[in-house]
Amino acid sequence: MEVFFLGTGAGIPAKLRNVTSIALKLLEERGSIWLFDCGEATQHQILHTSIKPRRIEKIFITHLHGDHIYGLPGLLSSRSFQAGETEVTLYGPKGLKDYIEISLSVSQTYLKYPLHVVEIEEGTIFEDDQFVVEARLLEHGIPSWGFRVVEKDRPGTLLVEKLQEEGIPPGPIYKKIKDRQDVVLDDGTTIESGRFRGPDQKGRVVTILGDTRICEPSVMLAREADLLIHEATFSMGEESLAYEYFHSTTTQAAKVAFEANVKKLCLTHISSRYERTAWQSLAEEAQTIFPNVIVAEDFMEVVVPVNK
Amino acid sequence: MEVFFLGTGAGIPAKLRNVTSIALKLLEERGSIWLFDCGEATQHQILHTSIKPRRIEKIFITHLHGDHIYGLPGLLSSRSFQAGETEVTLYGPKGLKDYIEISLSVSQTYLKYPLHVVEIEEGTIFEDDQFVVEARLLEHGIPSWGFRVVEKDRPGTLLVEKLQEEGIPPGPIYKKIKDRQDVVLDDGTTIESGRFRGPDQKGRVVTILGDTRICEPSVMLAREADLLIHEATFSMGEESLAYEYFHSTTTQAAKVAFEANVKKLCLTHISSRYERTAWQSLAEEAQTIFPNVIVAEDFMEVVVPVNK
Repeated sequence: MEVFFLGTGAGIPAKLRNVTSIALKLLEERGSIWLFDCGEATQHQILHTSIKPRRIEKIFITHLHGDHIYGLPGLLSSRSFQAGETEVTLYGPKGLKDYIEISLSVSQTYLKYPLHVVEIEEGTIFEDDQFVVEARLLEHGIPSWGFRVVEKDRPGTLLVEKLQEEGIPPGPIYKKIKDRQDVVLDDGTTIESGRFRGPDQKGRVVTILGDTRICEPSVMLAREADLLIHEATFSMGEESLAYEYFHSTTTQAAKVAFEANVKKLCLTHISSRYERTAWQSLAEEAQTIFPNVIVAEDFMEVVVPVNK
Repeated sequence: MEVFFLGTGAGIPAKLRNVTSIALKLLEERGSIWLFDCGEATQHQILHTSIKPRRIEKIFITHLHGDHIYGLPGLLSSRSFQAGETEVTLYGPKGLKDYIEISLSVSQTYLKYPLHVVEIEEGTIFEDDQFVVEARLLEHGIPSWGFRVVEKDRPGTLLVEKLQEEGIPPGPIYKKIKDRQDVVLDDGTTIESGRFRGPDQKGRVVTILGDTRICEPSVMLAREADLLIHEATFSMGEESLAYEYFHSTTTQAAKVAFEANVKKLCLTHISSRYERTAWQSLAEEAQTIFPNVIVAEDFMEVVVPVNK
């Protein structure tokens, strides 16, 4: 599981930072990639990476400001052109469906894969046997969502030696035990699967927030997360500007990380007013409140390590 | 008057060619820039040029395929953000207005300048004292337009020595004569302004076509043009492919240039199947039919010289 930053700027594209898009690479976990936001030229950024558009399985849209969505029609079209045939699901605010439908229909674009658009409400918006995604409304000028991506705990390692010591021969039984199923043998003996597995491997939590003022729902979504991605449009000291424009400062993002007790904080959506030479000090501002901080850059990849 | 190529590729963006956009720079003539098509990331391309988005006065859209329009909402929004306050007029096919309206409204984008969208019909779509723009439908899978931009002839140089020889003193009269107005003096004498100006300076003609098969309206739009910009999605020999996909080959574009007797032909909308090493041979194919040909590249500028 890695987070790859395709665009880390605010508002309008700049030479050093494109507008927002974040790829959550779940290639090992499920052979796919989830995208969070899709600002204009996200597909152009992807051209310079190893990401295959056909691997994109889900796209979560935090809010409908242009710098977060104007790359969607192009990405969806090109994915079709590039032999993407598997289903894609879009999750986002009300209005997303209309925008996609008119953009594709006016250009007479016919996708060669099924596209589902889910206009979300608060709570669990997706769940399968591997992942749960929870959404909550943040505090922005228009409805802006934050997402908590929870990887479910995985069953611990199969204790093969112990199974063999107890005379249970290899076979389909081993898979059942690995999958947390108890097994009743022909002789009526019940094998409690938990005895033959190591401890569960705790799933990881990644929290990705849309544009927002500092707010309580961010803390709720980020609680104990392995990685929190929080916007920091402005530097410390610009709190009134941040409030006025419904954004956050570096230290406000750090406060959320601290309160939620996350492992790592990554700041993004950095205004182009901050030149490259200032990026380090943005991180340092946040570190006065929460130590483990990095400032995202375009094409930066952050690994979310497996819990031991 | 210069033509600046912002994107010269076909269908989807590639590393070497972005999707279509062409800037007609009229900075000397009227202090403004006209854009023809606006594929995704046109504003990103502009970041690497001297073009100021606030100088963009008109945007002509040849057709509504995504690779020609998906950059519009972002460009229009950023222009507002970057202090563009003067009016912009968009000209294009039916459906353009809906697309722009929903893209701006769903993202709650409020432009700080007046935006007019004109859904065009065949004939003269714009005229003022400097320029006339004529539009005709070409032959593509969806309605696709070609534009003939005609600079009006400009009055010749004022013959100051001759005016002074005839005892006409400098003053507002000179400006009237320059502007082709005859003047009646206080004593009743009429000054025929034509006697005091050199020959008119012939205006230039630039023809910019949307995606199209080889067709007669292209020839009509390009008649005696100083510069014809014609798509050449495919190379010579791929005529059946070109026909099937409603596009043209290099030699078909050259035939149009030859029949219309233009001065120069510029090929664009080049498929990414042709690598950089093949570009020269695309030009050579066309040159077997029409000699003065260049193949456009992203960030190439072509000067349209003043007629002597």
